[in-house]
Amino acid sequence: MKTESTKTWWRWLIVVASALVVVLIPVPAGITRESWTLLAIFVATIVGSIVQPLTGSAMVLLGVIATALFGALKIETALGGYADKYVWLVLAAFFLSRAMIKTGLGQRIALVFVRLIGRKTLGLGYALIITDFLLASSIPSTGARSGGIILPIARSVSETYESRPDDGTAGKLGTFLMNLLYQCEVIICASFLTGQASNVIIADFIKKSAGIDLTYSVWFVSAIVPSVVSLIVIPLMIYRFYPPEIKETPNAVKFANNELKKLGATKPSEMILLAVFILIVGLWITITLHGIDATVIALFGIAVLLLTKVLEWRDLTDETHAWEVFIWYGGLVQMAKSLGDTGITKIFAESVAGYTSGWSWVFALGFLLLVYFYAHYAFASITAHVTAMLIPFLAVTLAVGAPAGLTVLLLAYFSNLSAGLTHYGTTPAPIYFGTGYVKQKNWWTIGFIASVLNILIWTFVGLLWWKILGWW
Amino acid sequence: MKTESTKTWWRWLIVVASALVVVLIPVPAGITRESWTLLAIFVATIVGSIVQPLTGSAMVLLGVIATALFGALKIETALGGYADKYVWLVLAAFFLSRAMIKTGLGQRIALVFVRLIGRKTLGLGYALIITDFLLASSIPSTGARSGGIILPIARSVSETYESRPDDGTAGKLGTFLMNLLYQCEVIICASFLTGQASNVIIADFIKKSAGIDLTYSVWFVSAIVPSVVSLIVIPLMIYRFYPPEIKETPNAVKFANNELKKLGATKPSEMILLAVFILIVGLWITITLHGIDATVIALFGIAVLLLTKVLEWRDLTDETHAWEVFIWYGGLVQMAKSLGDTGITKIFAESVAGYTSGWSWVFALGFLLLVYFYAHYAFASITAHVTAMLIPFLAVTLAVGAPAGLTVLLLAYFSNLSAGLTHYGTTPAPIYFGTGYVKQKNWWTIGFIASVLNILIWTFVGLLWWKILGWW
Repeated sequence: MKTESTKTWWRWLIVVASALVVVLIPVPAGITRESWTLLAIFVATIVGSIVQPLTGSAMVLLGVIATALFGALKIETALGGYADKYVWLVLAAFFLSRAMIKTGLGQRIALVFVRLIGRKTLGLGYALIITDFLLASSIPSTGARSGGIILPIARSVSETYESRPDDGTAGKLGTFLMNLLYQCEVIICASFLTGQASNVIIADFIKKSAGIDLTYSVWFVSAIVPSVVSLIVIPLMIYRFYPPEIKETPNAVKFANNELKKLGATKPSEMILLAVFILIVGLWITITLHGIDATVIALFGIAVLLLTKVLEWRDLTDETHAWEVFIWYGGLVQMAKSLGDTGITKIFAESVAGYTSGWSWVFALGFLLLVYFYAHYAFASITAHVTAMLIPFLAVTLAVGAPAGLTVLLLAYFSNLSAGLTHYGTTPAPIYFGTGYVKQKNWWTIGFIASVLNILIWTFVGLLWWKILGWW
Repeated sequence: MKTESTKTWWRWLIVVASALVVVLIPVPAGITRESWTLLAIFVATIVGSIVQPLTGSAMVLLGVIATALFGALKIETALGGYADKYVWLVLAAFFLSRAMIKTGLGQRIALVFVRLIGRKTLGLGYALIITDFLLASSIPSTGARSGGIILPIARSVSETYESRPDDGTAGKLGTFLMNLLYQCEVIICASFLTGQASNVIIADFIKKSAGIDLTYSVWFVSAIVPSVVSLIVIPLMIYRFYPPEIKETPNAVKFANNELKKLGATKPSEMILLAVFILIVGLWITITLHGIDATVIALFGIAVLLLTKVLEWRDLTDETHAWEVFIWYGGLVQMAKSLGDTGITKIFAESVAGYTSGWSWVFALGFLLLVYFYAHYAFASITAHVTAMLIPFLAVTLAVGAPAGLTVLLLAYFSNLSAGLTHYGTTPAPIYFGTGYVKQKNWWTIGFIASVLNILIWTFVGLLWWKILGWW
């Protein structure tokens, strides 16, 4: 207890020191003292959400309060992010994931795929991956997708084959499935604007820094080709080099049949949810045709679910994880926006870019992207990584002359793919790791191999695809 | 089940019909079609939160979504209320009430007062009333105050005297206490800007409609004299005409002593909370001196409670009632603001005021206030009452020439006092009524007598006091 509290004190010291360091730096010409205070608070908030003397979301709320308290922002401005439509898009999507779990539709989709293609181990893996992919098209809660829908099935099937974490039977099936599902999860995260919660913050930062609008459809269309290649290559790599002992899984089909029988006939609530789900995703993909705002579409879906009682009012207020994301995301969006308004990021990028002058943009971009990617070893969440590094890295790469269209896509996708490196890389990582099927060394080795493959695929296949699309 | 669902359908029909009626009225000159659509949605939202096909908060969220969906407001505007600083003030205050219950400080304050002056029944009542009054200085959650702190003690002491709801012993003590506490609760609600959640919306409406800023200190200073008179008169009236059989309650003191012993020495968390509580209220009352924003003060208090671990992060996200209030309050604030911007309210008031032209403002004001007050028989919450009636009534009374300072205070306080009429008048009403100690007839009779006394006190004592303060 004593050491725990001492540790916490050290963490607070680091947070406060990080703010003080900024405060002590002389304010550059053209920047106001208030803007510089905002930078100090922003830095401390980011440092705080990495070292975590309190949980990351709490650090953001404290940061928001600090901006108002120290006069860096007016309180009306500091709270501005909570009316941001993208923040509400995420909130709505979390409510949607609640419906997916509550009605059992997510589970049913997974079981249907298992029944269809789960007779072989690799097929079983793909059944779950396809489900995860479909759900990610509108559900950014990776915790809900993995913990609520995919993992329970993977685990049950593993146990059907008497593959358990602690008695030497993990290698029969469980280890393979967990490695497979997690490494594919980060690819799926990268595939949709709704792949995980901080993708909207990535899009937001990019819009504010580079003026490029990564809409739902731009994000998805750009990702789909490298994503499909990765989703084919990575599972085959794992199957080849870290194969399961059990190669055929007829029990999985039996299991799926039993579970589907238990679920019974499709309930009206599931039918409604499925219709709403298809409607939302359909409207999102066709936004350029009808022009209805993405948030309005999502909220309309929630309205339908409330009217049809698929969601009760209590489901919304009790979705505490949604409110947690709401607090940190709304706070960060506004802080980053206000910081961008001050012009500080621009000055920083210009001075750093001065060092790399003379480098070709190809070399500079490659170098900076690799640093950006492998920096994720030091981060326990995509959000922390993105908020700390994306804006300055984007500014610097643009300043050295890299094509904007190319740079923003690589940064956006790498932010997600890099989470595969460690067993703490993003929310579902500890959920999969926590099952005990995968040892850390094994996780990190596969994570590293997958990272190299992903970087190659997303760079070369990506570059080609985006050239065809005309993005650069 | 069938009838229940038929009932719900009828309610939806009423909601939709109310919107259609507005839509079918020809749009007055100078008002845009979008503004008129907003009015239709606002009316349907208010009607919906009265007839409640879904719970009131859900109706407001649906209203917000509808404004964006039907093009009455841009989504960015429709969500604007969620960045409103008063909405966040309420949110912060709810977190404060969580701390008050979690640490046991609220309970301890009540028990100390009971030990001090609880030897006689009337003193016992006052001990609880004083506690409620003190808490209301910063805790707008009437449910938390009544349900979490005051009622449990009143109930326990009643049971100590074997006064129970159902075995003919209610009249010994319980009936008296419940009547007393609830009738004083509505007076306490009227005494502070933080007395109950919709007081901030009242202040907001008044600021937007009449340009008068009912700050925390203006609200409190204006209320304190009539409030104290009411808190003396109403208990004495109940004690005189509906006396408890038991007049002395030494057991209450014994009970308080026992409970305080169980609570043990004051915990550090309680000391910190008490300090924060005093700091917040002190800073709120002295805002004119230092000028720090009320919301910043409240959020600063929450930051201190987080830093000192009096509140854990989970306490915030799990406070689902706070999030419920956040959704409805943020939605309504923006809808009412946007409606004010359209100029519709002004046109309405001018045309109604045309009918009352020739009336003296005294007569017109008195008549309108009485209608406003007793209209509460038809409302199940102060919020519904206020959102439906305050803006038009304020506009009309001002249009007939009533002094603005006087009018806004009477409307603000009457909005609270009128909740004493029924056993469903405001949140804590069903909590007290639910104990079973008070029969409906008894409740309504006392409620009516108290309403007459309160109207007389707040009109005449109020008028005099506000004249002294120079408000009119």
